[in-house]
Amino acid sequence: MKIKVINPNTTWEMTKGIADAAESVRRPDTQIIAVSPEIGPASIESFYDEYLSIPGVLEEVKKGEEEGVDAYVIACYGDPGLQAAREVTEAPVIGIAEASLYMASMLAARFSIVTVLPRIKTMLEELVDGYGMSKRVLNIRTTPMCVLDFERDPERGMELLRQEGRKAVEEENAEAILLGCAGMAEFANELEEELQVPVIDGVVAAVKFAEAIVDLGKTTSKLKTYKAPETKQFIGMLAPFGSKA
Amino acid sequence: MKIKVINPNTTWEMTKGIADAAESVRRPDTQIIAVSPEIGPASIESFYDEYLSIPGVLEEVKKGEEEGVDAYVIACYGDPGLQAAREVTEAPVIGIAEASLYMASMLAARFSIVTVLPRIKTMLEELVDGYGMSKRVLNIRTTPMCVLDFERDPERGMELLRQEGRKAVEEENAEAILLGCAGMAEFANELEEELQVPVIDGVVAAVKFAEAIVDLGKTTSKLKTYKAPETKQFIGMLAPFGSKA
Amino acid sequence: MKIKVINPNTTWEMTKGIADAAESVRRPDTQIIAVSPEIGPASIESFYDEYLSIPGVLEEVKKGEEEGVDAYVIACYGDPGLQAAREVTEAPVIGIAEASLYMASMLAARFSIVTVLPRIKTMLEELVDGYGMSKRVLNIRTTPMCVLDFERDPERGMELLRQEGRKAVEEENAEAILLGCAGMAEFANELEEELQVPVIDGVVAAVKFAEAIVDLGKTTSKLKTYKAPETKQFIGMLAPFGSKA
Amino acid sequence: MKIKVINPNTTWEMTKGIADAAESVRRPDTQIIAVSPEIGPASIESFYDEYLSIPGVLEEVKKGEEEGVDAYVIACYGDPGLQAAREVTEAPVIGIAEASLYMASMLAARFSIVTVLPRIKTMLEELVDGYGMSKRVLNIRTTPMCVLDFERDPERGMELLRQEGRKAVEEENAEAILLGCAGMAEFANELEEELQVPVIDGVVAAVKFAEAIVDLGKTTSKLKTYKAPETKQFIGMLAPFGSKA
Amino acid sequence: MKIKVINPNTTWEMTKGIADAAESVRRPDTQIIAVSPEIGPASIESFYDEYLSIPGVLEEVKKGEEEGVDAYVIACYGDPGLQAAREVTEAPVIGIAEASLYMASMLAARFSIVTVLPRIKTMLEELVDGYGMSKRVLNIRTTPMCVLDFERDPERGMELLRQEGRKAVEEENAEAILLGCAGMAEFANELEEELQVPVIDGVVAAVKFAEAIVDLGKTTSKLKTYKAPETKQFIGMLAPFGSKA
Amino acid sequence: MKIKVINPNTTWEMTKGIADAAESVRRPDTQIIAVSPEIGPASIESFYDEYLSIPGVLEEVKKGEEEGVDAYVIACYGDPGLQAAREVTEAPVIGIAEASLYMASMLAARFSIVTVLPRIKTMLEELVDGYGMSKRVLNIRTTPMCVLDFERDPERGMELLRQEGRKAVEEENAEAILLGCAGMAEFANELEEELQVPVIDGVVAAVKFAEAIVDLGKTTSKLKTYKAPETKQFIGMLAPFGSKA
Repeated sequence: MKIKVINPNTTWEMTKGIADAAESVRRPDTQIIAVSPEIGPASIESFYDEYLSIPGVLEEVKKGEEEGVDAYVIACYGDPGLQAAREVTEAPVIGIAEASLYMASMLAARFSIVTVLPRIKTMLEELVDGYGMSKRVLNIRTTPMCVLDFERDPERGMELLRQEGRKAVEEENAEAILLGCAGMAEFANELEEELQVPVIDGVVAAVKFAEAIVDLGKTTSKLKTYKAPETKQFIGMLAPFGSKA
Repeated sequence: MKIKVINPNTTWEMTKGIADAAESVRRPDTQIIAVSPEIGPASIESFYDEYLSIPGVLEEVKKGEEEGVDAYVIACYGDPGLQAAREVTEAPVIGIAEASLYMASMLAARFSIVTVLPRIKTMLEELVDGYGMSKRVLNIRTTPMCVLDFERDPERGMELLRQEGRKAVEEENAEAILLGCAGMAEFANELEEELQVPVIDGVVAAVKFAEAIVDLGKTTSKLKTYKAPETKQFIGMLAPFGSKA
Repeated sequence: MKIKVINPNTTWEMTKGIADAAESVRRPDTQIIAVSPEIGPASIESFYDEYLSIPGVLEEVKKGEEEGVDAYVIACYGDPGLQAAREVTEAPVIGIAEASLYMASMLAARFSIVTVLPRIKTMLEELVDGYGMSKRVLNIRTTPMCVLDFERDPERGMELLRQEGRKAVEEENAEAILLGCAGMAEFANELEEELQVPVIDGVVAAVKFAEAIVDLGKTTSKLKTYKAPETKQFIGMLAPFGSKA
Repeated sequence: MKIKVINPNTTWEMTKGIADAAESVRRPDTQIIAVSPEIGPASIESFYDEYLSIPGVLEEVKKGEEEGVDAYVIACYGDPGLQAAREVTEAPVIGIAEASLYMASMLAARFSIVTVLPRIKTMLEELVDGYGMSKRVLNIRTTPMCVLDFERDPERGMELLRQEGRKAVEEENAEAILLGCAGMAEFANELEEELQVPVIDGVVAAVKFAEAIVDLGKTTSKLKTYKAPETKQFIGMLAPFGSKA
Repeated sequence: MKIKVINPNTTWEMTKGIADAAESVRRPDTQIIAVSPEIGPASIESFYDEYLSIPGVLEEVKKGEEEGVDAYVIACYGDPGLQAAREVTEAPVIGIAEASLYMASMLAARFSIVTVLPRIKTMLEELVDGYGMSKRVLNIRTTPMCVLDFERDPERGMELLRQEGRKAVEEENAEAILLGCAGMAEFANELEEELQVPVIDGVVAAVKFAEAIVDLGKTTSKLKTYKAPETKQFIGMLAPFGSKA
Repeated sequence: MKIKVINPNTTWEMTKGIADAAESVRRPDTQIIAVSPEIGPASIESFYDEYLSIPGVLEEVKKGEEEGVDAYVIACYGDPGLQAAREVTEAPVIGIAEASLYMASMLAARFSIVTVLPRIKTMLEELVDGYGMSKRVLNIRTTPMCVLDFERDPERGMELLRQEGRKAVEEENAEAILLGCAGMAEFANELEEELQVPVIDGVVAAVKFAEAIVDLGKTTSKLKTYKAPETKQFIGMLAPFGSKA
């Protein structure tokens, strides 16, 4: 099966790391297509970046429809455009935040998220609440590093994750740690070994859930909320997103 | 003061109706600038449309910064891009859904929303829940009409609003009716007269709240969640949204 | 228009400060009538005080009906008698707690309240929860000062607000501060300047919301919850509250 | 022990019925003092009535302090003034709504409330929510009868309770019925026999809980929320509620 | 009346202490039957222990049906098997956790629980949430002592309760302390005297509530959720739990 | 990998159907071990049955530890003993209710559950709420058929599922249907074809999630809540559940 993993930001170095993570866990008969959109922000650290990454994400989903993709993974911890992507395709679409939360729930009673800059805490709180997981998430811990800092200085990145992860375990008894950024995938295994609790990277969680759902032949419900978008015109540079004549 | 009312869809006939509603309630010293973006969908009836309207909304907010705008109103009942817009400007930004919900809460104990197509019910439920208003909203009633149908056939639009409004009052004892689409502003007064409960149009509610907040000299908090977006590059046709060199 | 601002306690020095705050933000065509009731407690710092302030508040609303009042503001942070006042008049009635919460929600993602004695924390928690704002309020900070202490020793009052406000900003990243007592109105501007986040005084917020709602010609729904009280007899010194023969 | 059952309205015919209910279940060594206040409304069917019944309730609690009362029951289904009464005395104070909800929770998984006029539904919803019982209460059913109608025409009252109770059992599978008005106590046994599910009258529930708590020697916590009201002056006809010089 | 108090663990020393607590508060005409099951764990400190204590609890309830028991108390703070026990008998069944929470709610606005090992915190959080009490419980404080440690070393037990209780009062302003283990009953009075806030032991609370409910002649609703278990076969050593031929 | 699917009831005909469902979706390298316990009820339709199935479930998990099992599935829609099973093993343990809810959430915005007898509705409501899914579940529809009726008369079973499923889709716009009993697995495909919305059987969902989690090498967190049960003695016929000497 083909799983398209879309890194909603346009930093291909990071997409490469995400691809590596996905490749390392895919089944032999799964093909990973990892991409960044051709339009959008270099990283996502605000509502502004998040919303502006969505046109690129949707473009990649649309392309995927012609590439014979069986399932999509949106590989940014804000799950940008997830519900819209579900309208565009019948194939399952999975966000890495939701995947990490559901997987963690099957392995640990209470857990914490470690993520990038403090400013995205509100966004993640709303996300967690929307997924019904507020009672299970003990804390959303931020670091003073932005998304690309984790690419540029992985050693410091690992050090900060270690610090916050340890505090989560010791101070609030987090029984698992969720990595709140797709760019942290590479640190998961080392961190898990150190902390001795499950460390959940949403990218690999979502890829495996995608395989599971595709195996079952399940597709997105087209009854109501996720019906194909209504036929209509778009104008300006977004005209290509409109219905075809 | 200058209040920029952004209709996130690109249908200027509808923007005209929104402008009329805003003009009809503005104070003499308030200037209304009602616009549609230069890019985006002709109407908003799905998560797809909603997200793809946001770049246009943000562009209009950015333009507004040079136009000396004192407050912004986002005139679509999904409040698209609201949190991102707050990052882009220090001026207050108000969504018509939130304005209608807060105003209704000060006038009625329990109320219902009447809106367009059934498919957007999930979106509005999430919105209402996010604003903390789930206990007050009795029902979200949909109609078989899409957004632009209300422009094309206002008589049938009024008739359907009347029907659903009456059912809301009689069947669930809705103590106020909230109009769940910016294009319904023109029907508010007639409907209120018929139903004998407050009928709240979010456009006028938001304009008046904007005047109120600007009068007080209050601006959006820039401490954390709504800080200016981080400096970064955008690529492709969204490149103009990136930080200036 | 006439807005009657009712300070539910009977301390006219405080009413004076509330009147000043209201006057400082009203529009030229707005007339502020600021009063204390003729019966009731000198200040409100318990459920006991709160409930016993309500007869006086309702008396003032009833008087207001003959004074041609267009909207009422209840200027105590427990919003005492708010729902009963809405039964007594068709004019909008706004509590300063609800006004501050709704206004803050349009300017900041997360915020804290600073108020008087610790004992009223439960009351404010219930209030915040009733308005659907629990997820947005980070903390309710109390001070060892009672309501009238802020009148008697405004310097110490300002100092304590400054301390708690700063802790709110620094320790819990409060993106706005809400003043949890009508008597704190005078400190808002200075505090805002120091803390560099919006400081919301409910008195001025409520006055401006009242102007907004009156401009729109909206009145309280009389369908069900806020219908006029049923006709009936009252006895004892409360007899005047009964229906007129 | 002495339990003072305060009917917050001033209709002694109804107080008599409440007294009968309490007498019928008290233990031999329990003395019931059932009273109506000397001030206040003849019945309680609105927020207005509710708040204006509170001074009378508090007066009776204060009197009770000199009568050697061991526990108080507030016998109106809105639990008017409950939290204030807890400030005034160290003796336990129990509202009949809370008592009925807690007792029902120990006997049935899901239940419905049957009460008087439709307008009080909002008040009861807020009450139920405040007691944490929203998930257990299936419905709040109202009748077109006001409080005193149940005194005047008990046959029709019983008939309406029977109708609504039966619908609750059959339509929503209510596993118990809670009587949402102190004046309905007399109908409980007959109704229970007919419906074959527990019918809970809050008056008797509260009396028995009061006996239980007094037996244990437990009193209201005076640490913080329910501390004695602060010392202060009251003016006008409410002056007697102020602190003694 | 006969109240059977079932200590779900099989440590009779602890059952003795529970019996003493129950005896000390029962009314003269109440007979306490305190037992441990003949099967099950020596103490309950995990979901494993909890679930495996339930067969023994149910066996004791079944035996109680022949002993003419009027009400049952399940004396372990996880309320193990409570809902199943309600299916087995028409007599009221009360858990000590629910009893302590409801009684505390009538005496204090906010409170904390002090219990045994940290690992049961999740279980208690879920319990508190299920009873609708999350907003009232400030904290669930654990100690490094297991259940039987409190039997073996009551002095250290008392010392730890004192420490945690004092921290609850001082650090989070807990207005009452709930003892989160049936084995702590004996410490309640001394602790209450020291802390000067109500200390609620669920055992005595449940016994007194049981007396109250039996006095009223109320029994468990058999309409739906708590109907007698369906007729069916059980196999293996659990065969005796099946329906009789 | 080895996945042990435990049907908590002792009806092997049903276990056979569950095994078939699991076999039909497992990957070639997955081995399914489907069992019923040696002790316990023939079916599960009450809290009584549910709790009494748990010893058998735990016994099977313990046996599994020696069989080299990699993951466990608990195949009853009440997820009986799930949290205890997680204490007993480090291998992941997945309940079919949680699996169906998480999978449905990735495919549909709102959905309904169709299950067996009305009496278990409360149990499922509590389950759904515990998993944070209350906002997504529109309805829990019951049928007049007990668990084993679906084995005995599959045609009528299919007919009732079809009826309720259709009503769920048409009356409440359920965008997916969740099968609320492990014995319904065989009907999933036919029902999905008819209803044209995803029909989720928890058995296959859980098996595929188990494969996903095992592939990632993730195991249950042993930090706190799911630590191995404390060492202790059990007595009576449950003695084998105690710690080994």
